[in-house]
Amino acid sequence: MSVTAAQGFSAAGVAAGIKSNGNPDLALVVNNGPSRAAAGVFTSNRVQAAPVVWSNRVLADGVVSAVVLNSGGANACTGPEGLKDTRATAEKVAEVLDGHSADQVAVASTGLIGIRLPMDRLLTGVGKAAAELSADGGERAAVAIKTTDSVHKTAVYEGAGWTVGGMAKGAGMLAPGLATMLVVLTTDADLGSESLDRALRAATRTTFDRVDSDGCMSTNDTVLLLASGASETAPEYGEFAEAVRSVCDDLARQLIGDAEGSSKEIRIDVVGAASEDDAVEVARAIARNNLLKCAIHGEDPNWGRVLAAIGTTQAEFDPDRLNVAFNGVWVCKDGAIGEDRDGVDLRGREVVITADLAAGTEPATVWANDLTAEYVHENSAYAS
Amino acid sequence: MSVTAAQGFSAAGVAAGIKSNGNPDLALVVNNGPSRAAAGVFTSNRVQAAPVVWSNRVLADGVVSAVVLNSGGANACTGPEGLKDTRATAEKVAEVLDGHSADQVAVASTGLIGIRLPMDRLLTGVGKAAAELSADGGERAAVAIKTTDSVHKTAVYEGAGWTVGGMAKGAGMLAPGLATMLVVLTTDADLGSESLDRALRAATRTTFDRVDSDGCMSTNDTVLLLASGASETAPEYGEFAEAVRSVCDDLARQLIGDAEGSSKEIRIDVVGAASEDDAVEVARAIARNNLLKCAIHGEDPNWGRVLAAIGTTQAEFDPDRLNVAFNGVWVCKDGAIGEDRDGVDLRGREVVITADLAAGTEPATVWANDLTAEYVHENSAYAS
Repeated sequence: MSVTAAQGFSAAGVAAGIKSNGNPDLALVVNNGPSRAAAGVFTSNRVQAAPVVWSNRVLADGVVSAVVLNSGGANACTGPEGLKDTRATAEKVAEVLDGHSADQVAVASTGLIGIRLPMDRLLTGVGKAAAELSADGGERAAVAIKTTDSVHKTAVYEGAGWTVGGMAKGAGMLAPGLATMLVVLTTDADLGSESLDRALRAATRTTFDRVDSDGCMSTNDTVLLLASGASETAPEYGEFAEAVRSVCDDLARQLIGDAEGSSKEIRIDVVGAASEDDAVEVARAIARNNLLKCAIHGEDPNWGRVLAAIGTTQAEFDPDRLNVAFNGVWVCKDGAIGEDRDGVDLRGREVVITADLAAGTEPATVWANDLTAEYVHENSAYAS
Repeated sequence: MSVTAAQGFSAAGVAAGIKSNGNPDLALVVNNGPSRAAAGVFTSNRVQAAPVVWSNRVLADGVVSAVVLNSGGANACTGPEGLKDTRATAEKVAEVLDGHSADQVAVASTGLIGIRLPMDRLLTGVGKAAAELSADGGERAAVAIKTTDSVHKTAVYEGAGWTVGGMAKGAGMLAPGLATMLVVLTTDADLGSESLDRALRAATRTTFDRVDSDGCMSTNDTVLLLASGASETAPEYGEFAEAVRSVCDDLARQLIGDAEGSSKEIRIDVVGAASEDDAVEVARAIARNNLLKCAIHGEDPNWGRVLAAIGTTQAEFDPDRLNVAFNGVWVCKDGAIGEDRDGVDLRGREVVITADLAAGTEPATVWANDLTAEYVHENSAYAS
């Protein structure tokens, strides 16, 4: 049910002609209130797309009345003209909707970096989307934000009298801070922007920020959480935060499941770390090791590459105490040869690598993918 | 002419049966003096192979009389038993050569991590190599250290009455600190170990340490420089240091030229940085961006991926002042769209990416490769 699972929201997804193949490429999500509290998290890349710059400003007041999203172009590295295009998009949304102001309209874009958007088609598309807004338009909106995604991604959490729904897109350039993703979460819970912000940051820190498909950080990542208050219910904060976390976790897993060219999903569990930061640093180093990612693709439990990756970090550990398991078989014990690697079965799509630093009690999990010839193919032909 | 280009050295390369395919896999390089001064640089990976641990100790005194190298197994992550194997190898060399002591014999190994070496064959091979030592054995030694290298790598610099020669192996896991490489440099210049150490560190800092084929740092990297003094010539330090640098640069370029599965060599020139550290950080971030490496493979001047990579660094820059050129065409100016990307021709094997941070005057160059389906294939089938 996507972003319209929660009461108080309408959405639409249309083909505006931004993509040359005629697929849906423009989505509109409108918060009909009574509340319009919102929170947002954006890429930590220092090169930020125009819509990220814009939406960051919109979020400063904690109020978002609508979100317009397009695929088919990232509007990144487009200079002052690109920012004008984003502003014009928000202004068009405010113009076609009653009672909205451009400075409360968030904008998100995804696609190729470094090209201007076809603004005539895009603005016409905004009008078309506004005309098609409906309380069951969430799925169509989710479809319209796809780029190389093979499927659209949605998730819902049902609380007692309130709901959190969401949609996501992202299939490549998936790495922390955040993955290349656009995510819109909606809720009819009645909570202020500060609670939303706190819940969203806590949720993304251990979900979207721990997805690392290809080590590449995007210029456009945007995760928004909009609250309509339409349920007239104010859930207890802890329960609400857990709902947001579970929806984010669900969507993050869907992103990894659909990553470009992947044949394996790799769950990297680091345990026994002296601190959570150490655990995350080690998990990321493992997640980004191309040689290991190739080995997993070849169903080869090449634990030496895990140790080589761990050795590049600053985490606290003794190389002679490291332990590594593939799917539960401890092939490396005390930094050396452990159980028989022939006992490891990597034929399934999901592979679990456990790295025990034997330096403490803190754990962290990062999700990654294998590296495949299909990934190379998909990303060498992207712009042509 | 490899390591025997300099006077005072003999070498051999034999098939000891460490590799199952019967290819040469054991090399011996002997310094016949009169001097036996030496210097070494090793991987900065915190997980270090037994031969790295051993050779680091040997180098502490600045004296190396012989180096024994094997391919077919890295002897990494093999625990105390692996270190005993390394010691036994050095002791065998001392036993079969007159006037050598095990604690002056450096050992280097390369191949798969996490397997014990077949010591009976290896020790027999040491005897065989000693029997075949000759003043023109440098090429055979260079062949014996190959793993996935398609060609053996050697380089020579001829000074006025003195020579620097060298051999290298390395085709994957090539990343700073150092690449997965074994390098032995020899010289008949008469210089003490302190001068050798200074020249070697200065040379590797801007050559081997600026090669980044696949972002993966090895457990076994070893670069040794041995001086025999046989020319009875003591060159001026600056000239000698430049000779060592040029031999290292030549070998480093050969490593990139032969990197696993590569179809392009990518020279990344960062200019206009506020500091050399900034320039290197940015160049490395670009070098390691899988999406960009795929784009180069597809001959696509996808400058947006360069900016996205730069944006992940902590270097000093203003995103709106960044400029990027592919093969001299400035496709990105002031952080936005520059010259027509259709003017870029990426069909040649060498691609030059120039990133101007517009924040200062410091430059740095890093060499990388593209990411190809062949790389994935070669590294997914490695251990099987």
